[in-house]
Amino acid sequence: MAMHPFSLAGIYAPIPTPFDANDAVAHDKLAENIAKWNKTSLAGFVVLGTNGEFPLLSDREKVEVLRTARQAIPKDKQFIAGTGCESTGHTLRFTEQAAAIGADAAMVITPSYYKSRMDAGAMRRHFLQLADRSPLPVILYNMPGNTGVDLAAETVLEMAQHPNIVGIKDSSGNIVKLGEILRAAPPHFQILAGSASFLYAALVLGAVGGVAALANIAPEACCRLYEYTLQGQHQEARQLQLKLIPPNAAVTIRFGVPGLKQAMDWLGYYGGPPRPPLVPLDEAQQAALKAILIAAGILPT
Amino acid sequence: MAMHPFSLAGIYAPIPTPFDANDAVAHDKLAENIAKWNKTSLAGFVVLGTNGEFPLLSDREKVEVLRTARQAIPKDKQFIAGTGCESTGHTLRFTEQAAAIGADAAMVITPSYYKSRMDAGAMRRHFLQLADRSPLPVILYNMPGNTGVDLAAETVLEMAQHPNIVGIKDSSGNIVKLGEILRAAPPHFQILAGSASFLYAALVLGAVGGVAALANIAPEACCRLYEYTLQGQHQEARQLQLKLIPPNAAVTIRFGVPGLKQAMDWLGYYGGPPRPPLVPLDEAQQAALKAILIAAGILPT
Amino acid sequence: MAMHPFSLAGIYAPIPTPFDANDAVAHDKLAENIAKWNKTSLAGFVVLGTNGEFPLLSDREKVEVLRTARQAIPKDKQFIAGTGCESTGHTLRFTEQAAAIGADAAMVITPSYYKSRMDAGAMRRHFLQLADRSPLPVILYNMPGNTGVDLAAETVLEMAQHPNIVGIKDSSGNIVKLGEILRAAPPHFQILAGSASFLYAALVLGAVGGVAALANIAPEACCRLYEYTLQGQHQEARQLQLKLIPPNAAVTIRFGVPGLKQAMDWLGYYGGPPRPPLVPLDEAQQAALKAILIAAGILPT
Amino acid sequence: MAMHPFSLAGIYAPIPTPFDANDAVAHDKLAENIAKWNKTSLAGFVVLGTNGEFPLLSDREKVEVLRTARQAIPKDKQFIAGTGCESTGHTLRFTEQAAAIGADAAMVITPSYYKSRMDAGAMRRHFLQLADRSPLPVILYNMPGNTGVDLAAETVLEMAQHPNIVGIKDSSGNIVKLGEILRAAPPHFQILAGSASFLYAALVLGAVGGVAALANIAPEACCRLYEYTLQGQHQEARQLQLKLIPPNAAVTIRFGVPGLKQAMDWLGYYGGPPRPPLVPLDEAQQAALKAILIAAGILPT
Repeated sequence: MAMHPFSLAGIYAPIPTPFDANDAVAHDKLAENIAKWNKTSLAGFVVLGTNGEFPLLSDREKVEVLRTARQAIPKDKQFIAGTGCESTGHTLRFTEQAAAIGADAAMVITPSYYKSRMDAGAMRRHFLQLADRSPLPVILYNMPGNTGVDLAAETVLEMAQHPNIVGIKDSSGNIVKLGEILRAAPPHFQILAGSASFLYAALVLGAVGGVAALANIAPEACCRLYEYTLQGQHQEARQLQLKLIPPNAAVTIRFGVPGLKQAMDWLGYYGGPPRPPLVPLDEAQQAALKAILIAAGILPT
Repeated sequence: MAMHPFSLAGIYAPIPTPFDANDAVAHDKLAENIAKWNKTSLAGFVVLGTNGEFPLLSDREKVEVLRTARQAIPKDKQFIAGTGCESTGHTLRFTEQAAAIGADAAMVITPSYYKSRMDAGAMRRHFLQLADRSPLPVILYNMPGNTGVDLAAETVLEMAQHPNIVGIKDSSGNIVKLGEILRAAPPHFQILAGSASFLYAALVLGAVGGVAALANIAPEACCRLYEYTLQGQHQEARQLQLKLIPPNAAVTIRFGVPGLKQAMDWLGYYGGPPRPPLVPLDEAQQAALKAILIAAGILPT
Repeated sequence: MAMHPFSLAGIYAPIPTPFDANDAVAHDKLAENIAKWNKTSLAGFVVLGTNGEFPLLSDREKVEVLRTARQAIPKDKQFIAGTGCESTGHTLRFTEQAAAIGADAAMVITPSYYKSRMDAGAMRRHFLQLADRSPLPVILYNMPGNTGVDLAAETVLEMAQHPNIVGIKDSSGNIVKLGEILRAAPPHFQILAGSASFLYAALVLGAVGGVAALANIAPEACCRLYEYTLQGQHQEARQLQLKLIPPNAAVTIRFGVPGLKQAMDWLGYYGGPPRPPLVPLDEAQQAALKAILIAAGILPT
Repeated sequence: MAMHPFSLAGIYAPIPTPFDANDAVAHDKLAENIAKWNKTSLAGFVVLGTNGEFPLLSDREKVEVLRTARQAIPKDKQFIAGTGCESTGHTLRFTEQAAAIGADAAMVITPSYYKSRMDAGAMRRHFLQLADRSPLPVILYNMPGNTGVDLAAETVLEMAQHPNIVGIKDSSGNIVKLGEILRAAPPHFQILAGSASFLYAALVLGAVGGVAALANIAPEACCRLYEYTLQGQHQEARQLQLKLIPPNAAVTIRFGVPGLKQAMDWLGYYGGPPRPPLVPLDEAQQAALKAILIAAGILPT
């Protein structure tokens, strides 16, 4: 297997999966949303990530979502599919399906249910077995806030030696760990910040881009922050980063997927209801979210 | 809906799902194991619980495991099916399938991936919507060590008012919370200790029984502890409880499902390999486990 | 050093340190409170524990509190002094002072500020060096909710071999760990439940008594629970235990020392203000606490 | 009270407190160490911080350490005294002593023992009462890894309105929280990164400097990283930052104060033994530390 020249540079939107009023996947809305994002500077899409409510979809629904996405995403934008399952075997099989459908890379979340047994050895075995056989380049997906499992820098660096493991999306916000990885990773291994809230800090340390919930509702602002940093416009980057923290926090930590979908509805995308047990925002939450988006210039006053 | 007269009293084995050397479910071994347990004093079985590696099975495999279990479990033993999924809709549909297959009750784990949003309101909505429509009595399944989510006593007590929510299996080991629930729950709502390690403490406070990994390999000892307590033989109960802690810890916290399966292989059941990413015990771990089981009198010297 | 015949059996009140309106220790009130508790069935007192606000006192104030307590506590009640400091040297010197003042035993909390370095080896060194030289029998004090450090059963059992380490007060509520210790500890090593909320469960497993915040305001109820268990009146014990959980939780986890002091004021003891930064209960909290104490029969309606 | 023009810009060493072979404070060594650091580019010193083992000192020892430091620190370097105690009253009195001795500012750690009661209201009350009366400008000290308490951005921002609260040293490593504070704090309120491991990321976001354990053993490297960032030499800053992470982690998270003192002994400072219960490094740890320092160019090969 040759070293992958796969580039992850740029800003990715981890797109939500839209549902209709009957709790079914709204494929038309998914395609329409993607068509809108296609007109932006985004480098690509992560489909079936945490914002895509992947744990709430059946195996069959997940395949169908990838199919719709493949049709809607043009070839000049990266199509990264979230293919991680709790078992190694299912992860491999779903990654093969994603490859057959035409995804460009697989983003694979850490198994986490048996967390006390998911030590470095188990993680290595899982990801290396997958990387050996996966037809797609593999991107590690570290999301401790949801999984309760946190990949150590040392473990990441060991796995980064595999030519088919091309990077990591890290949502921990642990900038020191990012630094430890960036210092010692081989050239083909790339880091994506998992949030717009620490995107600038990650970029100055050497991350190649970011996957940000905020990129769904403010794609150009996220791309501008990326460009400012790339161009060495640090004063502008700093100010933009500080401005983007409140709206990003609002659609992630504070209000989660329901908040993101609500914001999308306000901004001309189809957000729609989150799938239960996720609960839509109540009125007070909507008002708080709206105020934050207005203050950040994302919604007009 | 009438108040359920469903009784959960007694000791349940949360049985493992056996796999063959090709990582496929070994249905014949599952049936043979159940046939052996049928000769014991166990009150019944939990199929597709944490020890059943439910998160590592596909939707289809889960249905097939329930079918095999239904054929192997006699009518005088309870058949409790683990039917919890991350989404409310899938949980309901799988519970309906379990009912159609002939399970006696559904044990439903808390959704947990979107943990920051799984507040009391979201939990209530999830479980009450399910209980309203479920053809099976619902047993709450609280497993914070694996899910990172812990149902509060107050939330449990609110849900316990529903006539179709008949109990909780609590694996947190929080004996004070068990006490808070036992003090205020309605009569139809029953508590099962989720581990043999705090079974005696739970029983003296009013729990009706337990679901214990240890019951797979030492069913009669677990049942004897239950009987001692019921009969007021507290001295015997105390001594037996203390004796059962090390082997129970060994097949749960310390060595997990791989440890349990290893022990089963030694004891005439079919354990077989855990499904990856779970890793079988290495030699040192096997030796440590064997020593603990010998010391507890579960394995002969 | 001979094996200590020191007995910890019974119920202890971990008494608060009273302050006057000027934030000074109110020694007269301390003596008056003790005089009232002396008329109860309590086995003794823990002075300068967590409820004694020990971290909020200067070294000098702590010595003076012990002196006042010594004068007020009769010889037929045990006088246990909290003497743990962050440094090993200070802990030894303060324990020597407590011995000179006439305390019967020293209860020594785990050092915790440098928690990442407080591994089993550091803990052993700390407690064994102390036990070697301490003129008082040493009781380990495990309080993870406040310290963020939790002594493992294995570490406790190693330290329990020392003849001058006579027991542990464990406030973790981890009943399985209590069981592991009780199963393997030498005869001179005794366990005290660190809370009235799991007192019954601890006693049936073999604990010799308890140190309970609730014993400050409901000493006879706590002693009755102890007696019921000792006498094998398990039905009565169970009902009383369940009844005591809400008021105990109210003066510990829910409202803390400010709640305990408020309740004491209502019950004829001197509670007085907690020392800042602890904040007295506001009106809503007072009303909630009062309702709980009335429901439990501790305050009259 | 007028707005403080107090500047915290630059790099500070949080200096250790040296002990002799008898566990007594070695004042001569303290003075000698400071004399060496005085020849560096450091902006100043934090005395009695976490690296100063402040929780392991008596009240009297703490005063004496400040006196020695005052004599050794020249007027052109800032002298920041760690004055936080668990009680509000003691904190104020010790801050007044520090002022009388001649410290330039007080760094005040969050109270933490009664952590469940240290909500935003209690924190505000504690720090604002102190700031109202403190003769020294107050710097908040947030150190969740040791205290188990983490000041929220919102709480920091409320306290930052007080003219006598001039900044925060944040050791959480939460770069998003730093951003939230930097976005909204008033001009007089300054942020110091609490570690060399995220110094560069903090500086690009707007922090004015840092307090870094590493500055004790590599002061010029830390100051150079500060200068590179100030001068916009981001490529050099990035490379230096990545290089400094391993040695900084070694003398903080990995080997703590014992590691820092060991490194000082190797580098011509007096490190000496940590105070028990802190344990000196064993041989394997020493070898690992030495290898890291050599790889980072801090120790010669």
